[in-house]
Amino acid sequence: MNKSLPHYAVIFTSKHSENTEGYSEMAEKMELLAKQQEGFLGIDSARNEIGITVSYWASLDAIKNWKQQTDHLEAQQKGKTEWYSWYNVKICKVEREYSFNNQKPIV
Amino acid sequence: MNKSLPHYAVIFTSKHSENTEGYSEMAEKMELLAKQQEGFLGIDSARNEIGITVSYWASLDAIKNWKQQTDHLEAQQKGKTEWYSWYNVKICKVEREYSFNNQKPIV
Repeated sequence: MNKSLPHYAVIFTSKHSENTEGYSEMAEKMELLAKQQEGFLGIDSARNEIGITVSYWASLDAIKNWKQQTDHLEAQQKGKTEWYSWYNVKICKVEREYSFNNQKPIV
Repeated sequence: MNKSLPHYAVIFTSKHSENTEGYSEMAEKMELLAKQQEGFLGIDSARNEIGITVSYWASLDAIKNWKQQTDHLEAQQKGKTEWYSWYNVKICKVEREYSFNNQKPIV
């Protein structure tokens, strides 16, 4: 990921409702669509009891544009009426970053 | 969670190594310890292919103090030598936040 500082993170924390029919397909579609947006930098997801998806963006404008993207608006609506019992969205400025990598190189 | 803005998020993204012996106990211990730190506001975790833990803090100083806490330093060291093949840490300022809640009240 090409993520020069400063950049922005959207932390999406959620809990599914009992009805998740159609959710996986939509989540996959939205991830592909997000990746095509101007200013998209990366996305990470994990889910057990709760789900956490963090997406990274070059600017607040890029986040705003993605929030208002037509197909994404439709997905957000279905999320509220069907798939989520709750969610929380935090828009954050990434101020510092560091990494550790012990993966062996592929020979 | 009592999280008045502005506050800070630490996004910890990681991949386990093949050796996770002792990891769960340490993760549980560290979460209990984090909750006792001055300035701790909350924590969320999920893990599938990768793990994402987001902890929330009242200030950058609170994050720094937690990073340098003695028992936590020991856990970080074991994380590097044993439990993680890679991890990434991002220190973020939470600038905006909104929620949706469709949970039925408990009667």
